[in-house]
Amino acid sequence: MSIAWTSRYALRTKAIKSSAIRELLKLTQNPEVISFAGGLPASDLFPRARFEEACRKVLEQNVSQALQYGETEGYNPLREMIARHTSRYGVKAQTENVLITTGSQQALDLIGKLLINAGDRVLVEAPTYLGALQAFNVYGAEYVSVPCDENGLRTDLLEAPLRSGPKFMYVLPNFQNPGGTTLSEERRRALVLLADRYGIPIVEDDPYGQLRYEGEHLTPLVVLDRENMPRDSGYTLGNVIYLSTFSKTLAPGLRLGWIVAPPEVIAKLVQLKQGADLHTSTFAQIIAYEVARENFLDEHVKKLRIVYRERRDVMLEALKLYFPSEINWTRPKGGLFLWLTLPNGMNANELFHEALKQNVAFVPGDSFFAPNGQGQEGRHHLRLNFSHARPEEIREGVRRLSVAAKTQLERLRIAGQI
Amino acid sequence: MSIAWTSRYALRTKAIKSSAIRELLKLTQNPEVISFAGGLPASDLFPRARFEEACRKVLEQNVSQALQYGETEGYNPLREMIARHTSRYGVKAQTENVLITTGSQQALDLIGKLLINAGDRVLVEAPTYLGALQAFNVYGAEYVSVPCDENGLRTDLLEAPLRSGPKFMYVLPNFQNPGGTTLSEERRRALVLLADRYGIPIVEDDPYGQLRYEGEHLTPLVVLDRENMPRDSGYTLGNVIYLSTFSKTLAPGLRLGWIVAPPEVIAKLVQLKQGADLHTSTFAQIIAYEVARENFLDEHVKKLRIVYRERRDVMLEALKLYFPSEINWTRPKGGLFLWLTLPNGMNANELFHEALKQNVAFVPGDSFFAPNGQGQEGRHHLRLNFSHARPEEIREGVRRLSVAAKTQLERLRIAGQI
Repeated sequence: MSIAWTSRYALRTKAIKSSAIRELLKLTQNPEVISFAGGLPASDLFPRARFEEACRKVLEQNVSQALQYGETEGYNPLREMIARHTSRYGVKAQTENVLITTGSQQALDLIGKLLINAGDRVLVEAPTYLGALQAFNVYGAEYVSVPCDENGLRTDLLEAPLRSGPKFMYVLPNFQNPGGTTLSEERRRALVLLADRYGIPIVEDDPYGQLRYEGEHLTPLVVLDRENMPRDSGYTLGNVIYLSTFSKTLAPGLRLGWIVAPPEVIAKLVQLKQGADLHTSTFAQIIAYEVARENFLDEHVKKLRIVYRERRDVMLEALKLYFPSEINWTRPKGGLFLWLTLPNGMNANELFHEALKQNVAFVPGDSFFAPNGQGQEGRHHLRLNFSHARPEEIREGVRRLSVAAKTQLERLRIAGQI
Repeated sequence: MSIAWTSRYALRTKAIKSSAIRELLKLTQNPEVISFAGGLPASDLFPRARFEEACRKVLEQNVSQALQYGETEGYNPLREMIARHTSRYGVKAQTENVLITTGSQQALDLIGKLLINAGDRVLVEAPTYLGALQAFNVYGAEYVSVPCDENGLRTDLLEAPLRSGPKFMYVLPNFQNPGGTTLSEERRRALVLLADRYGIPIVEDDPYGQLRYEGEHLTPLVVLDRENMPRDSGYTLGNVIYLSTFSKTLAPGLRLGWIVAPPEVIAKLVQLKQGADLHTSTFAQIIAYEVARENFLDEHVKKLRIVYRERRDVMLEALKLYFPSEINWTRPKGGLFLWLTLPNGMNANELFHEALKQNVAFVPGDSFFAPNGQGQEGRHHLRLNFSHARPEEIREGVRRLSVAAKTQLERLRIAGQI
């Protein structure tokens, strides 16, 4: 053999940007570290007894289906349940509108596969969900980033970006990851009207919509879009592809998400999913169905809301108590994340390393901005998760983080950089 | 809104060829139909009691890990188990060489994502596994098809195709799907030498290797490749990427497969998998580990071999008993499939429709040939699965199929077409 294998593979494989964040987060697996980094739900709230019951029942009554190959579209009773559940909010979804995916990360991948040719632009929020960027990057996406404020995506800035012809818009209207912001009702209406006028589909990603801790539920884009359509159009769903997941309300370890879309879009996604993993684990789907049915999931989500609301409040109080006044943060009405803004001159990546010395971790803001988006904006931000750690850990973690922040601030002051 | 949604989406989505086979197979879901179409393992052999025990144990002792997010690489004890298991055949695999995938269909998708740029050629066997073609087509693969005979891929015909510069070779050496053929020891050695000489990686897909019903286990390509490497090269794995799965030995409903490859290849695949579905179901992985451990899987596979061998023999006997002499078939030493060859003038797609009238189904051969492969060769072939139906159903199904075949033969004779 004439050349080393490594260089052979290097010659043959595509260039894949190594994920800086992935490498960083490996440093946080030390059990001494209090991590606010992941978007992990609370492990202590998984409904163990209900899972035990579901496993017993499924293995006793339905083992030959649960462990066998299944249909690419998903387990039908689960699809029906999701259609019914979605319909509560006014979306006229039928079973045929629902595709079960291997987590909503796969939904993003399939949408990228379906819609993105290399060089196509995707309109995203700035900041936006880093997993969506990872999924779309593979297909050669370019980005148009539009800023958010406390009411979500700045729809007043959308016309020019839409005129530049993006392939679709990717939007997280509820308790956005990472910003924690919620798109206002008024902007939701503006957004679907603009999507219609310019003929640009919206991908509405809604993993956190159920996790609202205060205020009223706002109408999903997919519903407003429907209201917007002529009654005689014959279409039950139009310009919006809606995504959600069981990862935040039940258990991420199942890897179960779903797409709600018009049948002709579902049909194409099914073809792509067949090539991607044939179908999502039948076992996971049937167990999830048995766990969720008879309104168990609704009751379970009520408990999650109480616990997560408390954890959010503990984190907000601790920030208020410990943090220097130069640093600001959002006060989200739901979801899993707070978004912090550092003063000019202060850098979240440097703070990350300082924080690790104090055994506390978070995700620096860089990863949440599209590559050709708003430049260096991310360096002034960081994301904190409040759902996973227990209240006493949250307090202690925020205290440690404040030590790191004060240390960095002091150093910058001495150096005259702030 | 000025144009219909359907045409909006048609304008925006990529052209995706509708899968003819998929549509055909929907016709076989009628319970009256005896289906030899799918590659389904026998549902009556799923080890229910062992799964019940595993679920009880995991939910009792490890619920917070089993239902939580996990690492993209996979559940470490499962990766270790697979590395140990693979090492029994002489592959020096370590945990770091193993990536858990969502079925081996995802392995094919990730490999396509990593290696194929639009227009790249992939060298495939003719016939080959249709799921691989589905996975690779999405990335714009072109194909070089090389014929097989009863000893598998015709390595004597490989030099010219290799000189044409394919990106990689995709090979199923054991009880090939659909051909049922096994690559001879001599050809295995020839293949890895050629791969080395031309610097073309091999993707060795081995879902059925454990399911051998007679004869001796043959050395995997990944092992021969290793033997072929200089001792001081420092590489534990080289030119072969090895794939396998629990779908045929344990349960396809778990969607668990794996890739064994050099660490630098695994590292890139991990990045791609992260964007594709973050990780494979932690729950399915931990349950599979608990079920498989302490040699349970080895013992279980011994039972499968006995049952599947009997079903193969029942099918072979029924074919001998009922079938007209113009039709030939393979006698595979393992796996799940027989491959039938029809006489010139007789068409497997037409036979499929005739067979449905008799309430029996199979997969026509067309789907197993790469698009720009050997032209119309597939129309003279069909694939029969013998693992799923019970012996009495196999006999009855083959009898029905023989009625369909005789009806078609008679019609062709009357029309003077045969």
